[in-house]
Amino acid sequence: MASSHPNNVGILAMDIYFPPTCVNQEALEAHDGVSKGKYTIGLGQDCLAFCTEVEDVISMSLTVVSSLLQKYKIDPKQIGRMEVGSETVIDKSKSIKTFLMQLFEESGNTDIEGVDSTNACYGGTAALFNCVNWVESSSWDGRYGLVICADSAVYAEGPARPTGGAAAIAMLVGPDAPIAFESKFRGSHMSHAYDFYKPNLASEYPVVDGKLSQTCYLMALDSCYKVFCEKYEKLEGKPFSIADSDYFVFHSPYNKLVQKSFGRLYYNDFLRNPRFVDEEASASLEPYKSLSGDESYNSRDLEKANQQAAKKIYDAKVQPGTLLPKQVGNMYTASLYAAFVSVLHNENSSLVGKRVVMFSYGSGLTATMFSLKIQEGQGPFTLSNIVTLIDVAGKLKQRVEFPPEKFVETMKLMEHRYGAKDYVTSSDCSNLLAGTFYLTKVDSMYRRFYARKDTTST
Amino acid sequence: MASSHPNNVGILAMDIYFPPTCVNQEALEAHDGVSKGKYTIGLGQDCLAFCTEVEDVISMSLTVVSSLLQKYKIDPKQIGRMEVGSETVIDKSKSIKTFLMQLFEESGNTDIEGVDSTNACYGGTAALFNCVNWVESSSWDGRYGLVICADSAVYAEGPARPTGGAAAIAMLVGPDAPIAFESKFRGSHMSHAYDFYKPNLASEYPVVDGKLSQTCYLMALDSCYKVFCEKYEKLEGKPFSIADSDYFVFHSPYNKLVQKSFGRLYYNDFLRNPRFVDEEASASLEPYKSLSGDESYNSRDLEKANQQAAKKIYDAKVQPGTLLPKQVGNMYTASLYAAFVSVLHNENSSLVGKRVVMFSYGSGLTATMFSLKIQEGQGPFTLSNIVTLIDVAGKLKQRVEFPPEKFVETMKLMEHRYGAKDYVTSSDCSNLLAGTFYLTKVDSMYRRFYARKDTTST
Repeated sequence: MASSHPNNVGILAMDIYFPPTCVNQEALEAHDGVSKGKYTIGLGQDCLAFCTEVEDVISMSLTVVSSLLQKYKIDPKQIGRMEVGSETVIDKSKSIKTFLMQLFEESGNTDIEGVDSTNACYGGTAALFNCVNWVESSSWDGRYGLVICADSAVYAEGPARPTGGAAAIAMLVGPDAPIAFESKFRGSHMSHAYDFYKPNLASEYPVVDGKLSQTCYLMALDSCYKVFCEKYEKLEGKPFSIADSDYFVFHSPYNKLVQKSFGRLYYNDFLRNPRFVDEEASASLEPYKSLSGDESYNSRDLEKANQQAAKKIYDAKVQPGTLLPKQVGNMYTASLYAAFVSVLHNENSSLVGKRVVMFSYGSGLTATMFSLKIQEGQGPFTLSNIVTLIDVAGKLKQRVEFPPEKFVETMKLMEHRYGAKDYVTSSDCSNLLAGTFYLTKVDSMYRRFYARKDTTST
Repeated sequence: MASSHPNNVGILAMDIYFPPTCVNQEALEAHDGVSKGKYTIGLGQDCLAFCTEVEDVISMSLTVVSSLLQKYKIDPKQIGRMEVGSETVIDKSKSIKTFLMQLFEESGNTDIEGVDSTNACYGGTAALFNCVNWVESSSWDGRYGLVICADSAVYAEGPARPTGGAAAIAMLVGPDAPIAFESKFRGSHMSHAYDFYKPNLASEYPVVDGKLSQTCYLMALDSCYKVFCEKYEKLEGKPFSIADSDYFVFHSPYNKLVQKSFGRLYYNDFLRNPRFVDEEASASLEPYKSLSGDESYNSRDLEKANQQAAKKIYDAKVQPGTLLPKQVGNMYTASLYAAFVSVLHNENSSLVGKRVVMFSYGSGLTATMFSLKIQEGQGPFTLSNIVTLIDVAGKLKQRVEFPPEKFVETMKLMEHRYGAKDYVTSSDCSNLLAGTFYLTKVDSMYRRFYARKDTTST
C-alpha cells in the first residue's frame, strides 16, 4: 500500500527580517583604526545589522513568521510542521520553536511537529531538509511546513567583530513549489573540527580559529562538490560542471570567502577536466595543477589565479546572490537563504527554468551542496509575488545607521544582558517598523516577555 | 515521475548505554534524611545512573554508536544519515553529531546527513521522525539512518536531584523494520511553557517548576491523545480506545508520573465513552465526570481513582516498559526509548504483531503520541536478536553502586567542570566496561579528547 511522493516539493514562499539598526563598515574601519578597505575590500562587506537590547533571535523569529503568515494570508491551522535552525542559544533546553507557538494560540492549532536543529550555520539547512522530507513522507498530513532560520552573530572586540550580522528568514514548504528541490543531487561532508565553536557557555561569543575555519570551509566545499558531481553523473549519465547550473549560492560569513569559494569550484572543474574551463583560464591555472591538497589551500597565488580566472562567471552566476550578505553581514543559519533571497530580488521572473546550486556550511563541521530548480509557481506562490512581498529594496531603505560608538556601546550592554535575568528593556522601539516584535522584560525566573509594535502606527 | 515510499520504515536495531556508576534510591533517601519511601514509592524510582568525571554525553554517544555498529557488523559506509537528540549542551554551536563523525573517519565516509535536534526530552523523537522521513523521502539514497538519544540529567541539590539519570541510545533506521512506524497515527501538542528550562547558561542545572511541569505533561497527553484518536477514527472508521493497543510507553521523568499518565488516559477513555472502561471502573470514575479541565488536573482524589481503576491494565500494558527508567532514572531524550527497550527485554518475540503506542514529552513544550507495529524482522534485525544483543540484564548486573556521599561528591566536581577548560581527568576508567569511551582532557582551547577502554581487557 505504498503511496507516492508529491511533486516538486520545495519553498512556496519566503520572508526575511533583519534589524533596521546597522553600522557601516567604512565607518567601522575608521573607528577601529584599521587600514582603509580592510572590512569593505578585505572582507568584502558593506554594512552590518545588529540587535539592540529590544531584539533577539526569538523576537526576530516572531516577527518574520507573523509577517509571512499575514502577507500570504495563511490560516495558522494550515501549518502542520514548524522547525527552527539556529545557533543563537538563549535557552539550552527550550526550543525557539516553542516560543513561536504563541503565534498559533489564537487559532487553537497545537498539532505542529518539529523542533530546533543545531549545528552552527548549518541548522537552517537541516531544518529545511527535514521539512521537505516530511512533506515527502507517509506522515505528511497535507498541511504546510514552515522553516525558520534565525541568528544574531556577534563577536568579541577584535578582527572577527566586523563579520557579525543578524536576521531571521521564514520559508513555507509544500508541493508544487516555485523553488523545488532536486533532491537526488546532493553531496554532504561532515567531520569533527574545532574551527568555530561556542564552548564558553556564559558568553555569547564564539571561539574562532579564522584560518582553520576558512580551510575547513574550502575542504568541505571540495568534498561536497565531488560527491555532488558523482551523484549527478550517475543519475544523468554525463558529468556535471559549473556550466550546468545558472547560479551558485554560498553560505557567506563574509563576501571575500564567497569569491574564494567560487574560484575554488572553478579550480575543481579545471582539475577534473581542463575542457570545463576556457583556454585562457586553463593556461593560467596550469602551474597549480600538481599542488597537493594542503598546498592548494595555502597558496595565495592559486587563490588569486582562481578568482581571476572565474571572475566573469562569478559576476553572472554568484554576484546576484551577494547583496544581503554584504549589506546585513553574517546571519549564520540565515546567511545562505538571505543570499538566495538576493538572487530572487535581482533576477526575479527571469529565474524560471533555471537551476540554483546551494552550498551550506556550518563549522564543527557539517556541509551540503544541493540543487534547486526554479519554476513559475501558482496562486500567491509565484516568483514575482514572492519578490514583491519580500521587498528587499524597501527593507534596506528603511534602515537606521548607527555611529560605530553606539554599536560598540550596544555590544557592551548585550554582553551584560546575555544569560541575565530580572531586567526590563528600555522598550524604545522607535527604530523598529510597525509589526515588529520586541523584548520588554526578563523576569526573576528568566522568563522572557515580548510585545508587538502597533501595526497601524508608522 | 513520483517514486514510492519504501515499506515498514522504522527501527532495525537498537542499543543502549548507561554509566555503570549508580546510586540506590533507598540509600539516597537515608542520606538525604527524607521520609522512607519518598523516592522509591513517592517517585517510584529504584536507582539512578550518573556520569563520573570521565564520562559525558559525547563519550556515551561514542560508546553506544560504536557498540551498535560492531554488534550488527554494519559497515560505516552504509550509514547515510546520523542525527542526535539531546538537551545536554557541552557546546552551543558544535553538534554532538560532529563528534560522532570521528567513528567514521577510518572508513572515509563523510557523506552523512543530519545534525542535532533540541527541545528538552523530545529531541530524540524529533531526530527519529526526521530519520524515518528521510528514508521515505526522494532524497533517500538507500543507506541506513542512525539516531542517537543521549543525555546526562543532573539537578541541583534538593527535591529534584533524585530524578536524575544518564544514558545514550542508538537506533538504526531503515525499511522492512521489525519496529515499524504507523505514521498516520500521530498526534502532537506543542505550546509555549516555562515548566522546565535551562536559561542559566553557565550552569548544567535546569530551572524546574515541578508542579507546573506535571500539569503541562498531563495536558499535553490529553491533547495528543485527542488528536491521535481523531486521526485513527478518520482513517480506520472506528474509534480508538486503550483496548486497541497492546502496550503504552511513556516518557518517564519518574515512574510515578507514568502511573498517573496511564490513569489519565483511562479517564480520557471513560469521558469519551463510559463503555470503553469496565463497569466497576465506570462507577468509580462517575463522581469526577463533570470536573473542569483545571479541576481534574488538581484533584488528587481523581488521580487515585484513575490509577486504581486502570491498575490491572497498567500491569499488562505499561509496567513492562518501566524497568530501565526505574533503574537508570530520567535519561531525558533517551527515557522513552529506554522504556521501549524495557518492553523488548520483557516481552521479546511475543511482541510480534503487537501495537505499541508511545508518548514523547519535552518541556517547553513539545509532545507527540505515535504508534509502532512490531514484526518479526529479518536477517540480523529480528526482535529476538535485538533483545539478545542489547542484553539489558547483563548491563544491569555489571553496575557499580556508589554510596550517596560519593555521588554527591561527584556532582560537586561536575559542577566545577561544567563549561571549564584546561584540565585533565583522573582517567580512572576502572569502573567502565571494555569498549567504553571516556574523557581524558579538555585543553586550553576547550577542545575535548576521548580515549576508548581497551576492548580486549576485562
